[in-house]
Amino acid sequence: MMFPVRRFAEEAREEQIIHMKELVIGFLGCGNIGGGVWRLLEDMREEIAERFDGLGIRVKRVLVRRVNAPRSCGVPREVLTDRAEDVLEDPEISLVAEFLGGEQPAADYMLRALRAGKQVVTANKMALCLHWAELNRAALESGAGLFYEASVCGAIPVIRMLNTSLQSVRVDRVMGIINGTTNYILTGMSAGGAEYADVLADAQQLGLAEPNPESDVEGMDAAFKLAILSSLAFHSAVPYAKVYREGITHVTARDIAFGAEMGYTLKLLAIAKRDGDRAEVRVHPTFLDRHHPLARVDGAFNAVYLHGDACDAITLQGRGAGDLPTASAVAADILQAAAGASGLPAGGERLCEERLTVSENWTTRYFLRLSAVDAPGVLARVADCFAQEGVSIAAMMQKGAAEDGRVQLVFITHLAEEEAVRRALPRLPEDICRVESMIRVEI
Amino acid sequence: MMFPVRRFAEEAREEQIIHMKELVIGFLGCGNIGGGVWRLLEDMREEIAERFDGLGIRVKRVLVRRVNAPRSCGVPREVLTDRAEDVLEDPEISLVAEFLGGEQPAADYMLRALRAGKQVVTANKMALCLHWAELNRAALESGAGLFYEASVCGAIPVIRMLNTSLQSVRVDRVMGIINGTTNYILTGMSAGGAEYADVLADAQQLGLAEPNPESDVEGMDAAFKLAILSSLAFHSAVPYAKVYREGITHVTARDIAFGAEMGYTLKLLAIAKRDGDRAEVRVHPTFLDRHHPLARVDGAFNAVYLHGDACDAITLQGRGAGDLPTASAVAADILQAAAGASGLPAGGERLCEERLTVSENWTTRYFLRLSAVDAPGVLARVADCFAQEGVSIAAMMQKGAAEDGRVQLVFITHLAEEEAVRRALPRLPEDICRVESMIRVEI
Repeated sequence: MMFPVRRFAEEAREEQIIHMKELVIGFLGCGNIGGGVWRLLEDMREEIAERFDGLGIRVKRVLVRRVNAPRSCGVPREVLTDRAEDVLEDPEISLVAEFLGGEQPAADYMLRALRAGKQVVTANKMALCLHWAELNRAALESGAGLFYEASVCGAIPVIRMLNTSLQSVRVDRVMGIINGTTNYILTGMSAGGAEYADVLADAQQLGLAEPNPESDVEGMDAAFKLAILSSLAFHSAVPYAKVYREGITHVTARDIAFGAEMGYTLKLLAIAKRDGDRAEVRVHPTFLDRHHPLARVDGAFNAVYLHGDACDAITLQGRGAGDLPTASAVAADILQAAAGASGLPAGGERLCEERLTVSENWTTRYFLRLSAVDAPGVLARVADCFAQEGVSIAAMMQKGAAEDGRVQLVFITHLAEEEAVRRALPRLPEDICRVESMIRVEI
Repeated sequence: MMFPVRRFAEEAREEQIIHMKELVIGFLGCGNIGGGVWRLLEDMREEIAERFDGLGIRVKRVLVRRVNAPRSCGVPREVLTDRAEDVLEDPEISLVAEFLGGEQPAADYMLRALRAGKQVVTANKMALCLHWAELNRAALESGAGLFYEASVCGAIPVIRMLNTSLQSVRVDRVMGIINGTTNYILTGMSAGGAEYADVLADAQQLGLAEPNPESDVEGMDAAFKLAILSSLAFHSAVPYAKVYREGITHVTARDIAFGAEMGYTLKLLAIAKRDGDRAEVRVHPTFLDRHHPLARVDGAFNAVYLHGDACDAITLQGRGAGDLPTASAVAADILQAAAGASGLPAGGERLCEERLTVSENWTTRYFLRLSAVDAPGVLARVADCFAQEGVSIAAMMQKGAAEDGRVQLVFITHLAEEEAVRRALPRLPEDICRVESMIRVEI
């Protein structure tokens, strides 16, 4: 994994000139992350050479859309090109770092690079996730490495941890706050009692949410990342399409306040659990017990909680986004590639096969808020509907005066099957109550 | 780092018999951790073979003191030996896992193994820390790998993270709760208001503290681990002898209660900071702001907080001790060694050189408790002594009625130099006040 260095410091310094080696790389794209990687490699040039056996990293070509557009990242004009071939077909370039984002042409370019025997480092969760089998196969066939630490959770080294340190255990659970935008919004709603739309608008003004926030707030971003994490954790392809997904757009300040009173914090949680050859893989708003290690991960921070048989629980927290933290993960991958690593986990061919059955009938707890007619006998009828499907109530709260003759009833269930809850809800008599929200609970 | 696997699942299964390779290893010692590794490797046999290209791991010899002593770990009698040569000189054994603990003969045995070209995996922080330069040199010279993830913080993969994912950044701060026994004791004292000796006695009864707890409660265990972490984080030898060390035996329930009222939680914290070529490396009881990510790490859990320029803050939390969590780290190292990794960080020869100046005159905040005569003018005289050394007071608390004519005064300073505080304290007039405790504060 590292260089077979057999010399010592003093000799090393003298020999440096002779041993100096160069890694010639190309960038696909040069947005915020690409620019961050460029600056980081410049800034660390001396230390990298000193530690990595005289290694010099030269960025030879950078693919951009418009070579004449003004740029602040410091990449000189002469390395810019708008022809992908200049990067992908240059035999001198042995490593390609991809920052285009999106599915295509990123996936095709990576495939071409791998087939040409070039190492590929990517920060692109979507292209990786949707084309993993092909990319992985191409990497295995050509022997070129494929690295993607930066595709999930920025500076948090969860990919490398799964692919190295956790190879000796059976991981049975991955839970994560892996989208910064939604965590910022939910933290804001929890702290201030504001509604979703207002906090989103604030976040957009601060640049913490995209002008079109769909991929974040509807959970797609988290689902891509969870598909990658669960595939690695469970040694099986877990396709994006099999990740259950529910966003935060329907979350209300009222639910957050009710949950808080009952001891829960609302998070957009990515959850993957494995039991034998059955798995559940889901992204949805989740009430977390306020003592859960993830309940206090606020704002733009990300965190991943893993559980394995021999290692027990491990939690990693850090900057899940941001140009420089993400760039640091890309740069670390480039250095690992330079040092001879492959990036591929042991048994990487398994990532091409679906070896698990993904079920949507998981068992968890539920927070249910109903608005019900304020009349005697209502509670009994509601409870009966749940009982008929075997859903048992652990806690109930009615609070505040009736509005328009209706009251808010909040139930927390004991562990129940998703399907049983979904069967129970339509049983509730429409004339006396309406389901306002159903939020899953993890303790 | 991983096998250059270029085949796919179906073929792989057929080829397994042909490609099957065996890693023959020897154990030095077979206590709780060694036994755990044995069981883990047995338990994971099939999955390891499936993922690692048909790899089989055979433990050929296990060095123990008494071959006939009863053992519960399941190691068969015929592999046991009481002669170290049977492990160290067997040419078939290519990897030695060391579980003897203590400095000698563990360090000598590891050195012999490395010089014979055998890979070494160790969980022994003391032997590693005190003989790192020799061990490192032997590994670099023979090209054999040296792995020590399990020597620091059990299942928390902080070593591998430093040696791979953080190579692209400059780490300037490492702070950790890296000793489970003291964290258990301080958590107990904080929760129940009990005194040190009582909680220690409880912990000993529960097996959470050693009958002779010195290495834990005096901070030696944490200092060994911090020497290792800071050496790797700062790319320089940081010898154990240069780690400032203060244990928890003098900590009182009263101080913990005062601190709690002012918003602080007491932890035995390991702290390493770097600024250019100057470093501070210290283990001592520390009041942490209760919102600090490490303030809520309770009981037998360990956590490490790192800060680097490009990656910002990263926190890892998990089981820092325990047979199986620690065994999982050893087993992961064995698998990495089998897959061709060296365990050595890039520029590993730097670990043989002291490249930083370790200073004991750090700058931090201080909690100072004085017992003072309850009379007018006392406070002014005390404050004046601090002022004369440039130590400025940020908060003060006087609480409770006078006992024996004396009151408890608690001060929190602004940032101050350690040496200035040490000069200020003897200035305090003995006739009117006595320094009861000085505890450093991190926010």
